[in-house]
This record gives sequence, C-alpha cells and structure tokens, in this order.
Amino acid sequence: MATRRYAFGRMDEANHPDSIRATVAEFFSTCIFVFAGEGSALALRKIYKDAGASSGELLVLAIAHAFSLFAAISSSMHVSGGHINPAVTFGALLGGRISVLRALYYWVAQLLGSFVAALLLRLVTNNMRPQAFNVAFGVGAGNALVLEIAMTFGLMYVVYATAIDPKRGTIGTIAPLAIALVVGANILAGGPFDGACMNPARAFGPALVGWRWHYHWIFWVGPFLGAAIAALLYEYIMVPVEPPHTNPIHQPLAPEDY
Amino acid sequence: MATRRYAFGRMDEANHPDSIRATVAEFFSTCIFVFAGEGSALALRKIYKDAGASSGELLVLAIAHAFSLFAAISSSMHVSGGHINPAVTFGALLGGRISVLRALYYWVAQLLGSFVAALLLRLVTNNMRPQAFNVAFGVGAGNALVLEIAMTFGLMYVVYATAIDPKRGTIGTIAPLAIALVVGANILAGGPFDGACMNPARAFGPALVGWRWHYHWIFWVGPFLGAAIAALLYEYIMVPVEPPHTNPIHQPLAPEDY
Amino acid sequence: MATRRYAFGRMDEANHPDSIRATVAEFFSTCIFVFAGEGSALALRKIYKDAGASSGELLVLAIAHAFSLFAAISSSMHVSGGHINPAVTFGALLGGRISVLRALYYWVAQLLGSFVAALLLRLVTNNMRPQAFNVAFGVGAGNALVLEIAMTFGLMYVVYATAIDPKRGTIGTIAPLAIALVVGANILAGGPFDGACMNPARAFGPALVGWRWHYHWIFWVGPFLGAAIAALLYEYIMVPVEPPHTNPIHQPLAPEDY
Amino acid sequence: MATRRYAFGRMDEANHPDSIRATVAEFFSTCIFVFAGEGSALALRKIYKDAGASSGELLVLAIAHAFSLFAAISSSMHVSGGHINPAVTFGALLGGRISVLRALYYWVAQLLGSFVAALLLRLVTNNMRPQAFNVAFGVGAGNALVLEIAMTFGLMYVVYATAIDPKRGTIGTIAPLAIALVVGANILAGGPFDGACMNPARAFGPALVGWRWHYHWIFWVGPFLGAAIAALLYEYIMVPVEPPHTNPIHQPLAPEDY
Repeated sequence: MATRRYAFGRMDEANHPDSIRATVAEFFSTCIFVFAGEGSALALRKIYKDAGASSGELLVLAIAHAFSLFAAISSSMHVSGGHINPAVTFGALLGGRISVLRALYYWVAQLLGSFVAALLLRLVTNNMRPQAFNVAFGVGAGNALVLEIAMTFGLMYVVYATAIDPKRGTIGTIAPLAIALVVGANILAGGPFDGACMNPARAFGPALVGWRWHYHWIFWVGPFLGAAIAALLYEYIMVPVEPPHTNPIHQPLAPEDY
Repeated sequence: MATRRYAFGRMDEANHPDSIRATVAEFFSTCIFVFAGEGSALALRKIYKDAGASSGELLVLAIAHAFSLFAAISSSMHVSGGHINPAVTFGALLGGRISVLRALYYWVAQLLGSFVAALLLRLVTNNMRPQAFNVAFGVGAGNALVLEIAMTFGLMYVVYATAIDPKRGTIGTIAPLAIALVVGANILAGGPFDGACMNPARAFGPALVGWRWHYHWIFWVGPFLGAAIAALLYEYIMVPVEPPHTNPIHQPLAPEDY
Repeated sequence: MATRRYAFGRMDEANHPDSIRATVAEFFSTCIFVFAGEGSALALRKIYKDAGASSGELLVLAIAHAFSLFAAISSSMHVSGGHINPAVTFGALLGGRISVLRALYYWVAQLLGSFVAALLLRLVTNNMRPQAFNVAFGVGAGNALVLEIAMTFGLMYVVYATAIDPKRGTIGTIAPLAIALVVGANILAGGPFDGACMNPARAFGPALVGWRWHYHWIFWVGPFLGAAIAALLYEYIMVPVEPPHTNPIHQPLAPEDY
Repeated sequence: MATRRYAFGRMDEANHPDSIRATVAEFFSTCIFVFAGEGSALALRKIYKDAGASSGELLVLAIAHAFSLFAAISSSMHVSGGHINPAVTFGALLGGRISVLRALYYWVAQLLGSFVAALLLRLVTNNMRPQAFNVAFGVGAGNALVLEIAMTFGLMYVVYATAIDPKRGTIGTIAPLAIALVVGANILAGGPFDGACMNPARAFGPALVGWRWHYHWIFWVGPFLGAAIAALLYEYIMVPVEPPHTNPIHQPLAPEDY
C-alpha cells in the first residue's frame, strides 16, 4: 500500500492567494447553499404555519437543498474542491487530501458563510426567526444520531467516489450532481425524522441567529463520525494503489478471460 | 457477426483487488440507493398513515429513487460499472459483458447492501416495519408481472444504450443520469399499480427485514425477464459489428447522398 | 451563404444496418417516452378520478415526460440523433440534416413505438382507456393551435441549438437535458390549457388505442408548423457559414477591441 | 494584477454576423424562458384562483423557471454566452467581459424577447392578464430590495464561477445547470416573499403586457446592484492573475507539503 501522510501545510500556504481564494469560495458557496436551504424552510412557514409536514413541503426542502448545493459545489469545485460542509472537510483531512491549515480555513469560512446567510434571511423576511434542526416526536436522540451518521456516510462516500477517487475519470464532471442529489434524496428519507442535516455548517448559522441549540450536538457529532468512517474506508480500501486490471468494465471479454 | 463468448472468469479474478473493490462498490451503492428509496416510503408513513396515495407522495418516491440512484451509479460506475440491480447484472451477463463469477459477487453484494439498508432504517426510525412492493387493488398478478417486464426492459435498454454500447461516445458521461431518470419516470407511471420496482435487490432487503413476501416473486421474475430481453436485443441487434456508415448524424448531407 | 441541398437518400440507405438500427432506436425510445408519459396520466387517474387538475398532478406529468424524454434521447442520440418526435424529424428534414428516406423510416418507427406503448399500458393497467390531449374549457381551438406552435418552436429551437448547430462544441453533451427540460417546463406552462403535447407521436398512440380523435389535428398541425419555423430560422440565420469572430465569448477583451 | 480595460466595441462589431446572431440568440432564449416561467404562473391561475400559495404551486414555479432557464442558457451559451438576463449582462460588462455595444444589443433583445413571450401568452390563454412580481403582505419594499440584491448576487456569483472564470476547466459544461438550479432554489426560498425575480427582463414583459408597474423598480434596482457587486468581487478577487499553486485540489499531498 502506498504511504499516505498527513501534513499541517506548507510555510507559504497560510497567505498564498490560492488558499485565500479557496477560503473565500467556501464562504460564498456555503452562504448560497444555506440561504436557499434555510430560506425554503422560512418560505414554507410564510405560506403555512409549519414546514415539512406534507409531501409537498418535503419536496420543497429537498429540492431547494439539492439545487442550491449543486450550484454551490459547481461554483467552488475548481477553487476549493467544493466542500461546503465541515464534515466533508474533516473527511478529506482524514483521507490525507487537504492539509490541517487548509481545513481550519475552510471550517471558519463555512461557519461564517452560514451565519451571514441566516442573518440575511432574518433581514429580508422582516425578522422571521430561523428554524433549527430537531428530532421528531417518536424518534430518540440515539436514533437521530445513527441517522445522521448513516446519511453523512452516504454523502461522504459519494464525495470520495466522484470527486476525489483518482480512478473516477470523466465521471468527475458530474460529481457536483451526484453529491447534490444524494443530499436531496436523503432529505426525502430522513427529513420527517430529524430534518436530515448531514452538515454542521447548515445547522450552525440558523441555530446561532435563531438561538436554538436543543439537540444541536447531534448535527455535529453525527456528520463528523459518518464522514470520518466513509473517508477512511474509501481512502484505504477503494483507492487503488496497484496497477489496474487489464479487463476494462463492460468491454467484450478478452481471450484470456476464458 | 462478431463472435461473442461467455466466460466463468479468469483464475485470478476471484481474489483480484479489482473484483473485491467492484463488489464493495456494489454493496455500498445499493445500500445508499435502498436507504433513500425505502426511507422515503417510511418518511411518508411518518407524515401520513399511508405512502403513495397522492400525487405529492408519488413525486417524493420517484425523486428519492431517481436522485439516490444517480448518486449510487455515479459512485460505482468507474469501479463496478454501476449496476446496483441484480436484473441489470443479469442482462450484462447475458450480453457477455461480465463473467459469471463477477455476476455472482455482484448479486451477493447487492442483496446484502439492500438488507443492511433496511436494517439501518429499522434502527433509525425507532423500529418502523419496512414496506414491501405490492399489487394495487384492481390490478392482477399477471398485469403486475407484465408491468415489471416492460419497465425493466426500458431500464436495461437505457443501461445498454448509454453505459455499454461502444458507439455511445461522449454521451457515456450522462449514462447515470439517463438510467436514474428512466427509473424515476417509470415510478411516476407504474407506482400506483405495483410500486414500480424494476430491481429485485430493492425489493429483497425491505421484504426480509419487514418479513413481507406476498407477491415477492413478481419483483424477481419480472425484472429478470425484462432485463434479459433488452440485453439480448441490444447486444445482438444494436451493437454494430461492421464499420460505421460514412454519413454522421445531423451533419449536412454529403455529395454522395444525392 | 453555403449551399444546402435536400436529398431523398442514398441507394444503399434503405437497407444499410445503420438506417435499420436508427429506426429501431427511434421505435424503442419513443416507446419508453410514451410509456412513462401516458402512464403517468393513467397513474393519476388510478389515484384520483382526473389527471392534471392540481399543481401536484401537473408536476407529476411534467417530470414524467421530462425524465423519460431525457432517457429516450440519451439512448438514441448516438444512433439516430434522438428525435423521438415526428415534428423534430420534420424540422431536421427541412434543415437538410436528414434525408427524406430516413425521415419516413423515423416517422413510422415513432408512431409504431407510441402505439405499442399505449397498447402495453392498456394491458398492464387492466384495461384502462388511454387519455387524449384535449383543449381546456375556456380555450379555443385557435388558442391551442398557436400554443402548440409556440411551444414546439421553443422545443425545435433548443434541439437545433444544442444538438445540431456545428458551433455548439462541448455543450453538445447536455443536449438531451436541454431538450427534455424545455418539454417539462412547457408542460408546466401549457398543461392546463391544452395538455402541452408538442409531439404528434405522443398524441397518436394513446388516441388510437383509446379511440379519441377530438381535436387530434391540432397536435399534428401545431407541432409541424412550430418545428418547421424554428428549423428554417435556425438553419438559415443562426448556423454560421463564415469564419468565426476572433473574440471568443467571455474572454478578456483584446487590444483590437478598443 | 493584470490590467483589465473596458471597451465600447470594435468598429465592425455593430453589424458583424456574430453580434447579430448573439443578439438573436438572446432574444429567442429569453422568449423561451419567460414563456415557460410566466406561463406556469398563468397555468396555476387557470387551475386555482391564485398562484404560489401552496408548496405544490411553489414547486411548479421553481421547476418551470429552472428547467426553461437551463434550456435557454444551453441554447445560447455558445452563441451569446447565455445571459438571458439584463443584470447578468450588466455584471459581465462591469467585469470587462463584454463590450458596451454588445451589452446594449443584449438588453434590447432580452426586453423584446420577454415582451413577445408575454404577448404570446396573452394570445394562447384567451386573454389572461399576465401576473407581475409583487411584495407579499408583511414584507416591506426595503426587505424585498435586499432580498433581490442577495439572490441576484448568488446568481451572478454562480455565473462568474461556472461560465466566466478561466480556471473553471471542464466544470464549464455544467454551467447552465448550476445557473438554472440556483435560480430554482432561490425561487423556493424567496418566492413567498417577493416572487424571487432576479431578472429585470423576466419582470418587464409581463408588467408591460399586463400593465402592472407597482414595485416594478425593485426588480431592476435589486438585480443590477446584486449582479454588480458579485461581478466586481469575483473579477477582482477570485480570477487568478498569477501562476497557479503547484498542489492541485484533492491530490495526495506532495513531499514539499510537509
């Protein structure tokens, strides 16, 4: 197995224009994502009194998150790798794909972007108090924690397979779509149980501006654990370190296959 | 016509890292797909008492399956070919595109992935019993069987045309999208009649964990028959074996065309 | 302006494997499209008594058509150009992009594919009578005709710009998506007025199997007129025949621009 | 920093075929976009009495705009850059990416396209009066103005990052999707507050044909301000002018990183 090493970062990384730009890209992309995601929850509260209580509302939330996440990732993928999510950054860090310094920069940018988005939403909605992720009636904190671990595992697995795996080839151009759509699908599955967060930054800004911290820890611990498991598993099992098999997928079998 | 041969697999295929990785990829991708697909049915039961009884619920089910299937295929296409479906694996086997050994590995991984997803859903939903595919009132078992054959034929035809056909060219990069969206569209058409399964693995895990086996055979026989017909038809009629026509599609006609 | 000529077809085209394959591809792709499109209308009638009377039903229809059309075009684009629509074939014929013989083959395949899909739907739904396109209360036949012309103009314009225009470059890989989504969007706009057909084959099969011919002419005349106008306009105005401008789009302006 | 200069346009630009074609493309693409966008609002009024008052109606509006905008951008990106929006044209002008003359041409084409679409809708709907963007009860003009600035900032940021940024690489092929989906997501968030316009041309045609001008200024001032801020910020901060960092994103760290 090839040796993989961890790094704090190069001496010049702290103030290199590329690091600064990547951090700015994470800030604005997270802002765009949280603005539409949290905004759609407030939009439903503007129409109804509650959000997420019908299939139509569930669809609005899932599609608002999926669509805006696709735009956010597409806008930052070439600059920062398109994380938009502290748990994804944590996974990339554990897999040895970014330096510690870069991860710290990203985390600050992501949390700040979410905070600014929530603040803006409070301003434009004439002071509506942001929602917070919560655990539904009949679902325990333990259930919700495992749900966040499972859903973020799926998210990080897709991130690794489509955006990081060096074997991904041209499929890489559809990485933002795969990542955005797995988040949308998971919201349709997990939404009525715990809101389906999978992203501490998504939870943090609205929680801070709306000052709602009940169960907030679940949306940090769950995503970080899920992303960590997926990243380590993909990096050490799925990323090939030996020369590839000679029989490409879906080609007619060669004589030596018989 | 070029000779196409079937193969059990090379001697080293059973424990080659590429075979293992492809099997692992099928396991996790099927897990991601079934988690969101079956999870969305449980989410609707959490909101309402039943699932799929209104246009909004039908949309939730179709979009959850389409979005998660896209992510699942994109994540495994470069590793395993992105089957996520025993019927698709069967079609690829009949078309001579994978070996018998590889197909056996995939089948085990797909069924296991579906089982683990259903088990996880039971855990995170505080013990909700998984749904099962069923046949609607007013629809006979024979109708449902033909419906599964027809829908899985469409699915396998799209798989062959976009992911296997050597003439597909750059269109190949959108294969996961075409496959995922035909599944979503077929759910919108067939959902109210028999649930629109098209995938024995999708049916198996929830049936096992929820222990509901009524009509289960339809969701094995229908998909396998539909996929077999499509694969043989595409492989032997549509895949060209002679040199291509000199007049490419949609180019201005050449002098010899007149 | 470059000379563009029309052609009946080469002597060998009638029975060349490529012509046969393209015709078969049009048949199956139209079948897949009409099965999901018409099937979703029947699915709504299975759930409710009527289809398309609420925003949720409108979404089901639009998304079933868009998703299945995307899969249908992606599956046939590399073989037949992905028309799936006699009006699009007519436009390509007027623009000099396919021969008369090829167009005749496509038309037969498209109508046959739609007929087989409608027949299959009658079988699997336990004999539900297919819907037909109709004109809503308060909308005249003249309004509906102009609506079909306008919507099919938009569709054919998008087909030409993304799938035929030789200047399209890499954008060409997303042609199926642009075509499918403009059809979906037009259904959301035109659906409650006349069903938003834009495709004589989509109308023909269900009309034949359900034997409903009222207003059927609108869904032939409108799409053919709209596609003809768009094809001629795009071919003779938008397809460049002189060497391109030296200043590429969105690049920083060059010195000679000042 | 590299010098960026503004330009009125070359002497031959006013009547060069490329300028004419780009202008025609902006006209038709805006027409296609406004026809489906405004048409979906009229379709909802045909079904119900009001539009946008439920989650299902919000979804119809968001998806009609997103799908048609994707088709509109895909159809014109290779010809005109795919603006379809006077605010986006303004941003590209401020960033030094198009000439003043070209911007003037585009603005006229976009407003004319929107006007023709609204006129056509009045004709095909048997004289339904187009809607206009408005500010919801409980939301002030100031809130709506900031909302338009914030949402159009996000839109222009995505346009710059995915369609203009020279570092974007192959991600550029999915620019139309990122742009269309951020508009769809923002409609889900901002729709119930002020209609979520982000595009003066989208507002102008229906306002003119329906003769509704109340609050119309918000949908010019907000988008122009938001696009201006995003374009200047991206052009002067995010577009790199020095040679790139040696450590590409998501590659295993190199020895000099330690």
